[in-house]
Amino acid sequence: MSASRDIDALIDMMARLPGLGPRSARRAVLHMIRKKELLLTPLADLMHHVAVSVRECETCGNIGGARLCDICTSEKRGTGEICVVEDVADLWAMERAAVFKGRYHVLGGTLSALDAIGPDELRIPRLVSRVAEENVTEVILALNATVDGQTTAHYIADQLEGRVRLTSLAQGVPIGGELDYLDDGTITAALRARKEL
Amino acid sequence: MSASRDIDALIDMMARLPGLGPRSARRAVLHMIRKKELLLTPLADLMHHVAVSVRECETCGNIGGARLCDICTSEKRGTGEICVVEDVADLWAMERAAVFKGRYHVLGGTLSALDAIGPDELRIPRLVSRVAEENVTEVILALNATVDGQTTAHYIADQLEGRVRLTSLAQGVPIGGELDYLDDGTITAALRARKEL
Ligand SMILES: [Zn+2]
Ligand SMILES: [Zn+2]
Repeated sequence: MSASRDIDALIDMMARLPGLGPRSARRAVLHMIRKKELLLTPLADLMHHVAVSVRECETCGNIGGARLCDICTSEKRGTGEICVVEDVADLWAMERAAVFKGRYHVLGGTLSALDAIGPDELRIPRLVSRVAEENVTEVILALNATVDGQTTAHYIADQLEGRVRLTSLAQGVPIGGELDYLDDGTITAALRARKEL
Repeated sequence: MSASRDIDALIDMMARLPGLGPRSARRAVLHMIRKKELLLTPLADLMHHVAVSVRECETCGNIGGARLCDICTSEKRGTGEICVVEDVADLWAMERAAVFKGRYHVLGGTLSALDAIGPDELRIPRLVSRVAEENVTEVILALNATVDGQTTAHYIADQLEGRVRLTSLAQGVPIGGELDYLDDGTITAALRARKEL
């Protein structure tokens, strides 16, 4: 393949990333080419390393480089509390707030009748087994304040009722808001003021 | 380096691309990881190929994979007309309009007293020598309608006056507008209605 075809293919593929369109993809590719040593080559290397090493944690669904993620294997993280989030972006948002010291469970989405996503398409059975097998005292449902997010929270609450303390993020999460858009302070306040389900 | 550090480094580097910030870089990286086979691995490969093969055309400054670019070596492109543009993004914009059948000269920027960019920082001496050496009958100055773009156009016109027919894109280029933002029809109209300097 010729260099100009590679460049065209690179632009087409970059344009498929969320937040980028054809024009911003063209600008990004030209910028990378201009900064070949600083940007294009290191980006290619990093992407290659990540593609080869990245995998989902078998316990919580977080991404990392081994069978279990850094958080699940960290001795600094408590085992009593599990914070349930929809996806890894939400886990990252929680970690940026740096207020939660327990472990996570990444569902991989929400229940959705429209998209035919049921409990088995998500990591819900694994959550139920973790609660049975680990020394879990509290499950914090940190799902987005959307219809699907709240439907999912209620479904999980039904599954776990009576087995563990169930709480949800409360104060500060705006109606219809998504966790990944919130500032750290709001997330901190919501966690501190969490309420019983 | 651990996978999570690679992921963090990848996000940091993606956030430095034009049009992306930290949040959109995080979303883009998660999206790429979710579509590892379709997106992350092929993107890494393409970036690597481009980084290894891309170079500037010795004649016109366009990017390609050889000493001379695809346009300079194409037998379908006329040698009589040279279209002078600021950068490769503008060349791409002209090519998308598909109305110009000659060759290009990419300056690599504009003259700028503020940024201390003089004629020798740009590809202006090479343009003057091309006009002397090739069978050039017309130089079309397709520079942006900005102050620096027009200053540069006047400087080039001074250098080439009396040696070649000099024209500029005219009708349709909005005041303060940049070529790369225009639709194909506007560029076509501007080229067709080009006027003598
Ligand atoms: Zn884990
Ligand atoms: Zn060329």
